[in-house]
Amino acid sequence: MVKRNAFYAQSGGVTAVINASAAGVIQTARRHRARIGRVYAGRNGIIGALTEDLIDTGRESARSIAALRYTPGGAFGSCRYKLAGVDANRAQYERLLEVFRAHDIGYFFYNGGNDSADTCLKVAQVAENLGYPLQAILVPKTVDNDLAVTDNCPGFGSVAKYVATSMREAAFDVASMAKTSTKVFVLEVMGRHAGWITAAVGMADDAATPIPLVLLFPEIAFDEAKFLAAVDARVRAFGYCCVGVSEGLSDAQGKLLADAGTRDAFGHAQLGGVGPLLAALVKDRLKYKYHWAVADYLQRAARHLASKTDVLQAYAVGKAAVEMALDGGNAVMPAITRISDKPYRWKITQAPLSKVANVEKMLPRDYISRDGYGITAKARAYLGPLMKGEDPPPFKDGLPQYVRLKNVPVAKKLKATFVLD
Amino acid sequence: MVKRNAFYAQSGGVTAVINASAAGVIQTARRHRARIGRVYAGRNGIIGALTEDLIDTGRESARSIAALRYTPGGAFGSCRYKLAGVDANRAQYERLLEVFRAHDIGYFFYNGGNDSADTCLKVAQVAENLGYPLQAILVPKTVDNDLAVTDNCPGFGSVAKYVATSMREAAFDVASMAKTSTKVFVLEVMGRHAGWITAAVGMADDAATPIPLVLLFPEIAFDEAKFLAAVDARVRAFGYCCVGVSEGLSDAQGKLLADAGTRDAFGHAQLGGVGPLLAALVKDRLKYKYHWAVADYLQRAARHLASKTDVLQAYAVGKAAVEMALDGGNAVMPAITRISDKPYRWKITQAPLSKVANVEKMLPRDYISRDGYGITAKARAYLGPLMKGEDPPPFKDGLPQYVRLKNVPVAKKLKATFVLD
Repeated sequence: MVKRNAFYAQSGGVTAVINASAAGVIQTARRHRARIGRVYAGRNGIIGALTEDLIDTGRESARSIAALRYTPGGAFGSCRYKLAGVDANRAQYERLLEVFRAHDIGYFFYNGGNDSADTCLKVAQVAENLGYPLQAILVPKTVDNDLAVTDNCPGFGSVAKYVATSMREAAFDVASMAKTSTKVFVLEVMGRHAGWITAAVGMADDAATPIPLVLLFPEIAFDEAKFLAAVDARVRAFGYCCVGVSEGLSDAQGKLLADAGTRDAFGHAQLGGVGPLLAALVKDRLKYKYHWAVADYLQRAARHLASKTDVLQAYAVGKAAVEMALDGGNAVMPAITRISDKPYRWKITQAPLSKVANVEKMLPRDYISRDGYGITAKARAYLGPLMKGEDPPPFKDGLPQYVRLKNVPVAKKLKATFVLD
Repeated sequence: MVKRNAFYAQSGGVTAVINASAAGVIQTARRHRARIGRVYAGRNGIIGALTEDLIDTGRESARSIAALRYTPGGAFGSCRYKLAGVDANRAQYERLLEVFRAHDIGYFFYNGGNDSADTCLKVAQVAENLGYPLQAILVPKTVDNDLAVTDNCPGFGSVAKYVATSMREAAFDVASMAKTSTKVFVLEVMGRHAGWITAAVGMADDAATPIPLVLLFPEIAFDEAKFLAAVDARVRAFGYCCVGVSEGLSDAQGKLLADAGTRDAFGHAQLGGVGPLLAALVKDRLKYKYHWAVADYLQRAARHLASKTDVLQAYAVGKAAVEMALDGGNAVMPAITRISDKPYRWKITQAPLSKVANVEKMLPRDYISRDGYGITAKARAYLGPLMKGEDPPPFKDGLPQYVRLKNVPVAKKLKATFVLD
């Protein structure tokens, strides 16, 4: 059995649990030392491979790697750097393989979303064309939950839990202020194209604690008059209203609301997001006092409130990626397959990257209520299990204790350097 | 021993732990049934007293009252309604006492901050002048931590824990994105006049996990050039920078930055807060990619991340308020007195409201580092214990379970109604 090294990289926006996947990859590789030699990580993602800036994860203690399981962010650094098409920029791919060859990389684990699936697939194809033996596996990750084939995507469940919890808590606050003060609260959430995170806000409301919500999905064109009527009706009926809005809310022409010509004191286009915009609209037209919040990175970094299901699945896809590689898999991804809703049961299956790359899984229309402002029972059945369970990190002196790795560089072997675009 | 009823009201902005104080008041009163008959709560705070809209807390089960300990928001409703000065509006105070007389209220527990201390004191004075036997006790509450005499104020510790945790988590995210994407992250926090919450953001950074922070306190006049230089220096040294800014940041002329003439698409003044404004400034002058978050109500409602110290103290001041009343106290407040930092020890003492009303306790200058952008060891010693310990609420199906009370109204006894201003 040939023993070769592995390369692992984190790609795109990070999540509260992407490091749990890293732990899954590294710990599993360490249990197969006969076949996997060293596990190198790319410093700042794929850029680390291109520039031969590799990190030797072998220099990290077992304890540090275990601590990745509960540490948010990307421990080795990530990047927003999309590899060009193979025809457009073959040199990039050849450089990648040159670095892999120099360090005897036989396993490529790429932890990312749609774009990364595409890159991972191309790397596999170029390697095959050039006769370089490589197994390229995508480790799925995205808070947006828009990856195809897999039932859900690690990273999403924790954001879902965060936004639902935050909206529920804020609603308790607003309800108590509404008599003389704030009547409308707007929470802007991530998910520019697909409304999965917006749908999760809907879970704040349930039979035990009903909350008058209006959800604004990127999939539903914004209708100002209808929106204002919906908010007004809730304020009149319940005394207050909570609005959960996707950053990607667009009008009927597909134009982002957040891009509606806003100018700040410096004359910049678009100072705020769509959240404050809607809050001001409510104030202007309905005269209700408002508050708004934009959680931004807080929602995807909130490891303190991670979903246990999410953490387990993030770890599982990392582990499965290594097992699939050892099993001969190439250009594939561990997908989460749901067996049942109640009780929630799931398993890891293998999906070909050709079915995942560049496909965006939108929120099904039947997850959105008929009026477009809420979620259906079907959405609840889907979302519920993903946010289930708590898995808090260790706390010390009142604050979560997260690990910082040493990130020791691997000695360079190539003479040629690579200049990024 | 005369048995009389008690009135409890929540005032001003609510917190993650104000209901823990309510639980402290109600549970303690229930243990003294020989002297305290019924505990009525004002629906929506003092407005409930003025309009004779009282809630009979006796209709709530022991279990529901116990659940208040971990439920955010104001369970009986709060209000922003400042009673006018006694001379300006004697009718308000007389109406209050008329309602108290009708329901045989002998104990007035007012759960609020600076303004409420003033109101509580005036109610005590008017009652005394009119010969109406009443004991008026302030139960301290404010996320702003700006109450005098007490070492700290219930509500603050949990916000402190939330903002420090959130900034730490976001910093882990930003650090991983900084190579190709976000280099500057701005988190806007509450505390318009006093920088206590801004200081708490500084706790995100410690020896184990250093974070390049720039804090902008309301107490320090904003200097644009100096701020940009500070951010730039950190980005150059560490690759990224995290900015924690008070919503009350002002320039040298005392003008709020958030009020700097911003206009949105609808032509409103000030769409966003100071957070997005600073982020845009950084982008404009330093060309760094940015992200910003405004936590708003999320920070003061985040019961899921409450400080255990804060919860214990919030409960303790509620309990002590009742005990002080039974002990003959009037126009007083239970204050938290710190005995030692390490180990943190504290006790409840009694403070006269005359020393608390209308006094704003600002962040001491020696809690802020010399350059004005950080906190000192003295600040750390003060803040650390207040955010210590976790006390999560029960979770069910992935979400915190909070109680909604029945809030059964008490039958009105007065014929006259009262019209609010």
